[in-house]
Amino acid sequence: MQTDIPVGSLAAGAGSDFHVDSLRMTLHRVLILGGGFGGLLAAKALRRAPVEVTLVDKRNFHLFQPLLYQVATGSLAPGQVAAPLRGILRKQKNTRVLLGEAVDLDPASRTVLLSDGDRIEYDSLIVATGSQSSYFGNNEWRQWAPSLKSMEEAIAIRHKILYAFEAAERAKTPEERRAWLTFTIVGGGATGVELGGALAEIATRTLRDEFRSIRPEEAQILILDGSSRVLSRYPEELSAEAERTLVRLGVRVRNRTRVTRIDAEGVTFRLPDGAESRLTTRTVLWAGGVMPSEFTRMLAARAGAEPDRAGRIPVNPDLTLPGYENIYLAGDLALARGPEGAPLPGLSQVAMQQGVYAAGAIVARVQGRRPPKPFRYFNQGEMAVIGRGAAVANIFGLPVSGFLAWFIWLFIHLTYLVNFQSRVLVFVQWGFQYLTFSRAQRLITGARTGAAHAAEL
Amino acid sequence: MQTDIPVGSLAAGAGSDFHVDSLRMTLHRVLILGGGFGGLLAAKALRRAPVEVTLVDKRNFHLFQPLLYQVATGSLAPGQVAAPLRGILRKQKNTRVLLGEAVDLDPASRTVLLSDGDRIEYDSLIVATGSQSSYFGNNEWRQWAPSLKSMEEAIAIRHKILYAFEAAERAKTPEERRAWLTFTIVGGGATGVELGGALAEIATRTLRDEFRSIRPEEAQILILDGSSRVLSRYPEELSAEAERTLVRLGVRVRNRTRVTRIDAEGVTFRLPDGAESRLTTRTVLWAGGVMPSEFTRMLAARAGAEPDRAGRIPVNPDLTLPGYENIYLAGDLALARGPEGAPLPGLSQVAMQQGVYAAGAIVARVQGRRPPKPFRYFNQGEMAVIGRGAAVANIFGLPVSGFLAWFIWLFIHLTYLVNFQSRVLVFVQWGFQYLTFSRAQRLITGARTGAAHAAEL
Repeated sequence: MQTDIPVGSLAAGAGSDFHVDSLRMTLHRVLILGGGFGGLLAAKALRRAPVEVTLVDKRNFHLFQPLLYQVATGSLAPGQVAAPLRGILRKQKNTRVLLGEAVDLDPASRTVLLSDGDRIEYDSLIVATGSQSSYFGNNEWRQWAPSLKSMEEAIAIRHKILYAFEAAERAKTPEERRAWLTFTIVGGGATGVELGGALAEIATRTLRDEFRSIRPEEAQILILDGSSRVLSRYPEELSAEAERTLVRLGVRVRNRTRVTRIDAEGVTFRLPDGAESRLTTRTVLWAGGVMPSEFTRMLAARAGAEPDRAGRIPVNPDLTLPGYENIYLAGDLALARGPEGAPLPGLSQVAMQQGVYAAGAIVARVQGRRPPKPFRYFNQGEMAVIGRGAAVANIFGLPVSGFLAWFIWLFIHLTYLVNFQSRVLVFVQWGFQYLTFSRAQRLITGARTGAAHAAEL
Repeated sequence: MQTDIPVGSLAAGAGSDFHVDSLRMTLHRVLILGGGFGGLLAAKALRRAPVEVTLVDKRNFHLFQPLLYQVATGSLAPGQVAAPLRGILRKQKNTRVLLGEAVDLDPASRTVLLSDGDRIEYDSLIVATGSQSSYFGNNEWRQWAPSLKSMEEAIAIRHKILYAFEAAERAKTPEERRAWLTFTIVGGGATGVELGGALAEIATRTLRDEFRSIRPEEAQILILDGSSRVLSRYPEELSAEAERTLVRLGVRVRNRTRVTRIDAEGVTFRLPDGAESRLTTRTVLWAGGVMPSEFTRMLAARAGAEPDRAGRIPVNPDLTLPGYENIYLAGDLALARGPEGAPLPGLSQVAMQQGVYAAGAIVARVQGRRPPKPFRYFNQGEMAVIGRGAAVANIFGLPVSGFLAWFIWLFIHLTYLVNFQSRVLVFVQWGFQYLTFSRAQRLITGARTGAAHAAEL
């Protein structure tokens, strides 16, 4: 086998004694926690910098979160919306990727502790550990209403959706059948709207003619939204357009409702007039709020920081943790503010720009240049896709909807996909789906049957 | 939503009382257990027959088993080697697909019991429940050495392989590193050879330059084979060629060895001279024998049949279960014999031909035509791919190897993939891999981290 690792690089042979804990280099050591949009962009921005970069993530891949709902609804394969971090950074010789989970931090000794007991020293730290879904204190809801934050959850949602139609086909009473054919999405933000639109397409087009006892088209899809309109961060006209499109696809939207209970049988929610209502539904999907990762709470405690109600840690204008000029926060866990003082939203764009900013600030300090101006978010806009040829977009403040918005959405998402191969494959897959409504990844795997055998009954 | 289900078809609205257990039709009812090669081909062969077909499988998809090793080694996505049974059979109006698991059978009342208590009556039954991996009585080995029979196992193997390199990168001692970089495959049949070749390519090409503390090229890959040569069912020259190719790729093959123990730390095996040897290896993959599904044992007991040592049930020359002219067995669970009396191998080709035969025999009986001649296996050949541009094939008795065999393998497997969309996508993906050695599906998901959150560390 070949051995052509360049001399002088970080690389060392398998027989050497080069270990994480014996890392002692003269170069400035940048440790990045998290390989999401913030962490990955920070690492890439450091590719030519005279620093040694270590990127730690508990997963071996970068997840392209904006397309995760397409895994949950059977359009794309897990591997098409994720790329191995090592592969992305393979040519970046000053960077090493470690699979591991940060569990503690000691700012005094500049050390991060991993779950397996290893310690990693740093000179500068970028914390970009992202967020997880929040059930607003009702963690018992999680078992009945999976959310869309990880690959495993996306596959669990796919399982849940497809299984519901199978169970409906075999239901023994009309009531049971109706319960299986009722789908409830909690939350009317981009994720909720995208899930709702995709579910409608699955029911009315993808599964059409495939069942003998049920008509998938009779599925009821409901979005329960706490605010006064879906996509509440968008201009009002786009919210209205999104809702019209959802209704046209067969999705009902209930605004100003607050979910008070989720269990195996259904959902209870409070209507705007204060009355409680109960819906029997076997499939509930959570597209509600998010909160920072576990590590964030620990970080706040260690640094004496006070998180806001959503759990985010306030940062200085240069994204450093107050009191620690060598610790930067990027992405969903950071509470940064825009020019008018409003907190920046938890969007991939924000995380990416913050990651790049933190990397630049570190390089400036290492090279003795003056620090950059305070971080300023450049808002390119937001968009949500609802169905085939239907999307809403707010691009540089310009509202766009319908086919044009959908086309822009398509173009931008293909462009941002990390590697060329995924781009081509996703393009081909979307082309098929556009023409035939088929969804290529319709597997019910895992969960119930465990490691059951495929060829067996 | 639309309602265009044709009148007179099996379809009924979601509000009707059409249930499995109230199925009472005047048409001859064919029940097929299992949607693998045998069951699916039987169902398709009945598409124009004047019968009502019910296909029951515990998975919602047909698995293209010959390409499953490509899921296990990160080349293809799960959805590319599987297709939903409903989708395949959607236009076949005389057929319904049910997600369910058969657990018992009463030949007297012609009823099959599903695990949820439902009963399905039949006039003719085709049992095609396939096989599962056999650890030859050492079921405790399964936890350390997953086999390649189901989609879940394929993903677990992918996880195990990719995780081993990650763990090696973080290993603290040379011994630990070596244990993680040693891969052992038990079994030198087609699956073992294909896994070995793919592993070598992953180590020497796919992961190259991605690590900083290890060189993936230093991985040791070992095939432990009980027989005197790999691919023992093939002509000797092809076995020799396969072994040469494996060695060239860096895979070591040990013939005539018998594994006596598998545990968390490694494998113990007995050499041809009777001496025991111990190998420290953290990744053991099982490509050993198979045995029929659980249902087969029950079927044998109910029918008073005597399974052979491998658990297969002997069938009549027309594939019926002795004593039951309306029960057919197709695929891995049937012990059918060739013209010279040798048992037919457990190959997809055999299962497919048996499924089609059983369907034809049933139609002949229903239409009062005379029964078909005894089943005869038409052997088109066998092939195994070892690496890029390297395969061995025995086509109509003609041995072919090298690039030509690989090209034929490629062509045949693309042709047999169930749907056009998969064919195009797999073709594109293989093209990329051929040119760049990249593997698109390199995710470590599930298992250890559970429903962990992607953006979190």
